[in-house]
Amino acid sequence: MIRTLAVVGTGLIGTSIGLAMSRHGTTVHLLDRDPSAARTAAALGAGTIAAPAGPVDLAVIAVPPGAVAGVLAQQCARGLARSYTDVASVKALPAREVSGSIPDASCYVGGHPMAGRERSGPLAARADLFEGRPWALTPSPEITQTALNHALELVAHCGAVPLVMDCEGHDRAVALTSHAPHVVASLMAARLEDSPQDALRLVGQGLRDATRIAGGDAHLWADILRSNAQPVAQVLREVEKDLATLLIALEELAQDGGPPGPGMRPMVDLLERGVAGLRGIRPTPARRSADRRPFRVPIDEKPGELSRLLDTVAEHGVGIDDVITRLDAEQDRMTVEFAAPSVAAQQLHRLLTERGWQVEDTSAPPRRHLQPPRVDHLWDDKVAQEAHVVSVPSVP
Amino acid sequence: MIRTLAVVGTGLIGTSIGLAMSRHGTTVHLLDRDPSAARTAAALGAGTIAAPAGPVDLAVIAVPPGAVAGVLAQQCARGLARSYTDVASVKALPAREVSGSIPDASCYVGGHPMAGRERSGPLAARADLFEGRPWALTPSPEITQTALNHALELVAHCGAVPLVMDCEGHDRAVALTSHAPHVVASLMAARLEDSPQDALRLVGQGLRDATRIAGGDAHLWADILRSNAQPVAQVLREVEKDLATLLIALEELAQDGGPPGPGMRPMVDLLERGVAGLRGIRPTPARRSADRRPFRVPIDEKPGELSRLLDTVAEHGVGIDDVITRLDAEQDRMTVEFAAPSVAAQQLHRLLTERGWQVEDTSAPPRRHLQPPRVDHLWDDKVAQEAHVVSVPSVP
Repeated sequence: MIRTLAVVGTGLIGTSIGLAMSRHGTTVHLLDRDPSAARTAAALGAGTIAAPAGPVDLAVIAVPPGAVAGVLAQQCARGLARSYTDVASVKALPAREVSGSIPDASCYVGGHPMAGRERSGPLAARADLFEGRPWALTPSPEITQTALNHALELVAHCGAVPLVMDCEGHDRAVALTSHAPHVVASLMAARLEDSPQDALRLVGQGLRDATRIAGGDAHLWADILRSNAQPVAQVLREVEKDLATLLIALEELAQDGGPPGPGMRPMVDLLERGVAGLRGIRPTPARRSADRRPFRVPIDEKPGELSRLLDTVAEHGVGIDDVITRLDAEQDRMTVEFAAPSVAAQQLHRLLTERGWQVEDTSAPPRRHLQPPRVDHLWDDKVAQEAHVVSVPSVP
Repeated sequence: MIRTLAVVGTGLIGTSIGLAMSRHGTTVHLLDRDPSAARTAAALGAGTIAAPAGPVDLAVIAVPPGAVAGVLAQQCARGLARSYTDVASVKALPAREVSGSIPDASCYVGGHPMAGRERSGPLAARADLFEGRPWALTPSPEITQTALNHALELVAHCGAVPLVMDCEGHDRAVALTSHAPHVVASLMAARLEDSPQDALRLVGQGLRDATRIAGGDAHLWADILRSNAQPVAQVLREVEKDLATLLIALEELAQDGGPPGPGMRPMVDLLERGVAGLRGIRPTPARRSADRRPFRVPIDEKPGELSRLLDTVAEHGVGIDDVITRLDAEQDRMTVEFAAPSVAAQQLHRLLTERGWQVEDTSAPPRRHLQPPRVDHLWDDKVAQEAHVVSVPSVP
């Protein structure tokens, strides 16, 4: 059990760990080569700047990847702790360096909490920074059970979800999900450096979101990229290939200036693969298809009637992604179909009836349509994919 | 003055315009080749599906860029409106095509509202979609004053900010701020398509934000890229060059596996240019430096004292980006410095005093420091740049 903890490096991550563990009742000792940072963290409530009386149960080395092994060796030599972990965003390189720099690496388990903010430093720290987030652990075969359990306890008290991986698998994963995306965002952000002021007036939220991560500290990120160079290069070589293919197509189109045609295929291909890639990273996609009950409600087509219905169902957890409208062929009327969370279904049914709508039995198949249905989105991804019709404005 | 409006194409943008203009009291006629879409828009309150009795004042052609000229010619031939505008995200190609396809192009002014959502179709529409957003207008030299004023009135009633540009300048600007970023996001998102499930467990908000725009409709976006091929290709060729330079450096580092050194320079360069590029697109950077009053407050370094102060000032519009902590050399004490909005300054000063803090006069220069100050962020960008010190956890 962890009764005493040391945090070495009181930046955003280290201080957040200190806040979370202090709140939990653990005695936390804060160390930083910059006393101002450690004292700021202490004044925030992350722990004390007093030195521990003896070895603490666990020390968290919260410094950049390239510095982990050196700091760990230094702290091992002075006997700071019984077990050690780190929070660096690459794992293979520190593991190699650590095994060469301390006599017994069985007390060290690599760690990487998947949490951060663009803002760095202790003032940005939050006790709940890790809540619900994955926290990778990369134990070597010789790890002691005590060291592993100390790391698992740290993760648990920070409210995170442990995920045991091998170092190489971890590094390939973060190259794909974090490091290469950072480079790609920087590549785009770098284009904005010398752009005319008038062009920047047209900037919208899309570009801001797409480049936000590029705002991270350049030196810290260069160290991360260096420490994970090969896996990151592998991802970026693939990006480069796709970009080259796209550029050829784009430049041919620029010369021809012709109408839409087969020359657009490489662009559509890439864009469609992008859309497909995003399906895998939708937040909690499972929740949407499960535990929902379908509704079908015919509406009067007076202005605003549909908005009134959408507002009503929105209060019961139905977003516009859960809604489609259909034209009914036989009766020339519009029906609104949506999926509501099962827990809210009964109450919603009663409310809709009270407000004058007639909810139809959805176990019967929908009637034939005046038109192919305009399916902008369905609650079931598979159906949506198959039934995908235009979602762009169509030409009358 | 616009009394009657036609919207041709009731997707996200067309329906949102209909909602905004209907709310303003304008009679809006909705047309779409898909009657279900037009009727959905009408049921939302965006207008009527009834045909206008005579020519309307202004028709908004809200169809994809490649379809603008054809639809415009068709509607001109049947005399739908006295003036026309469109909402396509490229302007030079439609302008060229329009001037060749209608007898008198002086009634047409190109338009492009800088607003959108990932979700398309009428159900995603919102009356306030354009509020405060830029809306580019690209009038040709032969434009009539009436047509220009109709377009300006449309922009005003939608709550947007008009921005007059020439077609080519507009297209270069959106290539940089919208189209190339979309491609870059797609390039990254495409890498996720066949990635192992375990890797995707490590996905955080950073990747989701960086790739969000890649979720847009592939066919609509391919049409946009085709219609603006040359300016987009120009931006992406520069991206390609930077990527090639970076890859060489990265692969050398992967082979050497050496310590941090001059081999990291190309990475730091790119990342720093990215950071610099983002400075130009910060939301309302002017507001932060102006109209703020500096505060300096010494604090007791008991645990949580700093958090208590930060919570107090947060209620008065002071974010952590506005705050730094300093160590005072002579008195070995910590002071917290921040900038508060001038309007709140007097009240905040009183509140801080009431709660036991002593606010110091900031017209006197700060005392010498125990250490170089740890400047994570300052409220004045210029100062922050010059005074930029580590914002990464430092090694003790």
